[in-house]
Amino acid sequence: MQIAFLIYEGLTALDIIGPYEVLCRVPEVDVRFVAKRLGEVSVDTRAFSIRAPHALADVPSPDVFVIPGGMAGTFAAAGDEEILSWVRAAHAHSRFSTSVCTGSLILGAAGLLKGVDATTHWAARALLESNGAIYTKERVVRRERIVTAAGVSSGIDMALLLMAELAGEDIARATQLAIEYDPQPPFDSGSPSKAGTKIVQLALAELQRWA
Amino acid sequence: MQIAFLIYEGLTALDIIGPYEVLCRVPEVDVRFVAKRLGEVSVDTRAFSIRAPHALADVPSPDVFVIPGGMAGTFAAAGDEEILSWVRAAHAHSRFSTSVCTGSLILGAAGLLKGVDATTHWAARALLESNGAIYTKERVVRRERIVTAAGVSSGIDMALLLMAELAGEDIARATQLAIEYDPQPPFDSGSPSKAGTKIVQLALAELQRWA
Repeated sequence: MQIAFLIYEGLTALDIIGPYEVLCRVPEVDVRFVAKRLGEVSVDTRAFSIRAPHALADVPSPDVFVIPGGMAGTFAAAGDEEILSWVRAAHAHSRFSTSVCTGSLILGAAGLLKGVDATTHWAARALLESNGAIYTKERVVRRERIVTAAGVSSGIDMALLLMAELAGEDIARATQLAIEYDPQPPFDSGSPSKAGTKIVQLALAELQRWA
Repeated sequence: MQIAFLIYEGLTALDIIGPYEVLCRVPEVDVRFVAKRLGEVSVDTRAFSIRAPHALADVPSPDVFVIPGGMAGTFAAAGDEEILSWVRAAHAHSRFSTSVCTGSLILGAAGLLKGVDATTHWAARALLESNGAIYTKERVVRRERIVTAAGVSSGIDMALLLMAELAGEDIARATQLAIEYDPQPPFDSGSPSKAGTKIVQLALAELQRWA
């Protein structure tokens, strides 16, 4: 079982690390962090970089792949024919083709979401629809082999669902326990409807910072 | 406002990326990923490495620091006098000294937890107590300037609490929304009491893999 985690310049770190921290626990998994070229990619804040041990060409047909979102870097990746070709080719044989947050814009740019129910970060709905996807307001949307998750932290929930498919529910539950995922956020502002208008405006201003 | 995220060989990635993805949104924050030396550190699974842009000596007195956990690498770090000296010196002037998961064993090894209520990963309770800490079964434990979080994913909850202290509740709520942290795990197995004996045994076996 090979799982590819695509990284690219400007990705949002938690988008990829959330699913990775779950899926690296699939029994016998071969985890591949993969980038366009061997070397380092900076995260969206430029606070640190991640080294990709594998280039796209080294991981042509993973069983599962995960595409993270980001800000400007995601638009660049969604316009990069080398990345899009890899996504299309990987999807041709994958068991699951997945994204977190605005990573779905890359799936969309690759042409995989035309007429397909999918989700993305709440602030990126129109961008997703411009790719022909049918925006679906759920935290994780699975339609056959394509699984998309909402903003940033939702990739953890998505990965637990995938884990149950890939390794069975007991292993998925044991993984939830291993990472002690018993969330207790101190506030209940994780979606626009719960947060209210004032907080939505603050969040949009924050998101603009790295846009 | 300077926030240091300590990384070391063998850390668990989500332990540090969870808090980082929240705290990088503190207004005007200066985020510093810091390691013993400039260069790369591998995560516990060895799936990828993170480049530290700063060495310990470059970041002597952060306002806040976060120490992640891990497996064998954490024990090595907890026995590394250079790291422990940095932790003690940083704590002398910090506003908050924090850890996620077994990162509290490093706080403990530095002598900061003697007689202090603290938490860690559920499977590491005895190790924490061996440092003189008073194990406290809560997801996030704050005692004055020392804030410890339970296993891996709990650092997100901790960071939202810190964010409210550092930047106010509105910004903390906006950050929760920006990362769409509206958790909906598909199972309810995130703590030993909820998971039950069979799943606890499976999780312990999983944790042994990188021990």
